Amino acid sequence: MKRVYLDHAATTPVDPEVAEAMARVLRESHGNPSSIYAEGRAARALVDQARVEVAAAIGAEPAEIVFTSGGTEADNLALRGALKARRGDEKNGLVVSAIEHHAVLDTAHDLERHAHVRVSVVGVDGEGRVDPADVAREIDERTGLVSVMHANNEIGTIEPIGEIGPICRERGVPFHTDAVQTVGALDFDVRRIAVDLVSINAHKFYGPKGVGALYVRRGTPLATMQTGGGQEKGRRTGTENVAGIVGLGAAMRTAAARRGTESARQAKLRDRIIDGVLGRVPDAVLNGHRTERLPNNANFCIAGVEGESLIVALDLEGFAVSSGSACTSGETEPSYVILALGRDRELAKGSLRVTVGRATTEADVEAFLATLPGVVERLRSVATVTV
Amino acid sequence: MKRVYLDHAATTPVDPEVAEAMARVLRESHGNPSSIYAEGRAARALVDQARVEVAAAIGAEPAEIVFTSGGTEADNLALRGALKARRGDEKNGLVVSAIEHHAVLDTAHDLERHAHVRVSVVGVDGEGRVDPADVAREIDERTGLVSVMHANNEIGTIEPIGEIGPICRERGVPFHTDAVQTVGALDFDVRRIAVDLVSINAHKFYGPKGVGALYVRRGTPLATMQTGGGQEKGRRTGTENVAGIVGLGAAMRTAAARRGTESARQAKLRDRIIDGVLGRVPDAVLNGHRTERLPNNANFCIAGVEGESLIVALDLEGFAVSSGSACTSGETEPSYVILALGRDRELAKGSLRVTVGRATTEADVEAFLATLPGVVERLRSVATVTV
Repeated sequence: MKRVYLDHAATTPVDPEVAEAMARVLRESHGNPSSIYAEGRAARALVDQARVEVAAAIGAEPAEIVFTSGGTEADNLALRGALKARRGDEKNGLVVSAIEHHAVLDTAHDLERHAHVRVSVVGVDGEGRVDPADVAREIDERTGLVSVMHANNEIGTIEPIGEIGPICRERGVPFHTDAVQTVGALDFDVRRIAVDLVSINAHKFYGPKGVGALYVRRGTPLATMQTGGGQEKGRRTGTENVAGIVGLGAAMRTAAARRGTESARQAKLRDRIIDGVLGRVPDAVLNGHRTERLPNNANFCIAGVEGESLIVALDLEGFAVSSGSACTSGETEPSYVILALGRDRELAKGSLRVTVGRATTEADVEAFLATLPGVVERLRSVATVTV
Repeated sequence: MKRVYLDHAATTPVDPEVAEAMARVLRESHGNPSSIYAEGRAARALVDQARVEVAAAIGAEPAEIVFTSGGTEADNLALRGALKARRGDEKNGLVVSAIEHHAVLDTAHDLERHAHVRVSVVGVDGEGRVDPADVAREIDERTGLVSVMHANNEIGTIEPIGEIGPICRERGVPFHTDAVQTVGALDFDVRRIAVDLVSINAHKFYGPKGVGALYVRRGTPLATMQTGGGQEKGRRTGTENVAGIVGLGAAMRTAAARRGTESARQAKLRDRIIDGVLGRVPDAVLNGHRTERLPNNANFCIAGVEGESLIVALDLEGFAVSSGSACTSGETEPSYVILALGRDRELAKGSLRVTVGRATTEADVEAFLATLPGVVERLRSVATVTV
């Protein structure tokens, strides 16, 4: 059976050119970038070149890019590192939105429990938007960091970071954004956005899993959370994942070149999915903002079905979709993101996320729209949702 | 010019079969292991299979293996995680040896500064051996962890972890060993060694950079240092580096199968280097234990030369060697490991580490031994060491 992969928010296939660039490194380049002889210098050059490529894609300087093992580590480093760096100043306040990724929210709560950090959580409106005025209200003289994601990974809503950034800057508070879902899809330029820390994750834009980056604006205080050999100028130590970093650089370069036209194409498929589902499935509602959303993301609540049953049934029909974040697959609790929108628990359990990608065609979308209504009907006829 | 790579302690070339296994994952397998549909389950199976392979190589159960981004993260997770887990018990004491890798020593000092950890440093004898009685003396009722490496990465000395482990166990203190230099080269079985946490790093045994593991004996308290989606049973979150993990598993399997015969072969080359250097270079001394040392490691102090000049000169002659840990390349200070042996600073500056590997031949060793004396003589005739 032909598979139709519609979960690009969870992860993307590796671009064949990226895979080939990585395979070449694995086969041919074996030096340790910290070594000073020829093999080491060659490995260092590969890492440096990737740093230039990642920086160029977001308007940064290469020295502002710190490679990490992925988006989760980038988020952890941003929160833990920024607050650890300010501990002497007693800047122990952290402001986050209610719909941040687990990598931010769980880290905030871990810091609250273990590092005397005071966490303020800012809610969102019914479409998942943070009100910048709410962020402004939570900032006080003890605030050490504000973290609001660029776009939500489940519902796709794009947050007004262009308005939140200047508020933070005016109050002298560093601003972190988790841009894991956006840097490969939307223009992102740190010269135009007042943001100090940006999380990046290669496998969300056709790069490999296990490698990401944190943009750290020059002058932003940041302590390391992983100590050792002093790599990445001491901001993130450990021998560099050379092949992975080369993959990140290549994937970033390609994504930056394509994101304009490709995102416009995907937005059309997304809209077709949104219109199709809302038109053909009774009692389906859209989650997230209608227009201020990721170009590849559609997310619904479908009354009377459980998200997980829907995923399993669609999988059997050849479609890979999700009920929310891949990181929480298998949980039976409704998504905290959907609940934050004000949906009731029963409806929230029927969440369905459909995210298109580079390889998605109109035929894929039509096939999905032709299959979904029958699957929903069948599940509704047999299932009772338990709250 | 043919290059002769003699710095396998810094990093090893990726085994071609490992590279091919990884390339296959990058090309063909793109699911997120946390996703519940077919593509996700396939990725999960790859990760699980690698976990079985890593566990099998050290006599562990798969559930005791936590994948990390490398040896540095494994060391950090062991120290930070074990002490964080015991904070409620006020077990804030940490015992380490004076010659641990920076990933352990710097982490110990970071914990001392930021997390109220009390660090006791145990010295070594002139050959780099820790005396288990010294470790026993430093343990008290507040000790939360003991960390002594299996073999030192610079001088190659193998530490008596078989004696230290039982002391820790008797006193009820978890015992961590950084086995980054050894698991690929020596038999290592957690059923026979009383060790609770073991750091592993793929690129030291012909696997990729950027992936490693921490063995965590069942029942060992360990808090996570990176919070988020809950992967690795919450012990290390973040989307798994699937290709890297597959590479680690394949490299571990091959290393375990070969380590007996291959290490015996390498030990002969090592001894030839030791005898050759001591016989042909005047005023050269061996660092580390003569017999209780890594099968691939030779390390010397050569009076009257600076290590870095020697590395650069040998690089020009086609040889890749190092003056110590790759992580501290470029530093002009003498190695803290060599100083811990009791060498004076001037002599310590002339350190030279030569580490052979699977591809090293007798001819490579002879070529090195034929080249080194002339290079040393030339450097001695032009250089004055500044202390």
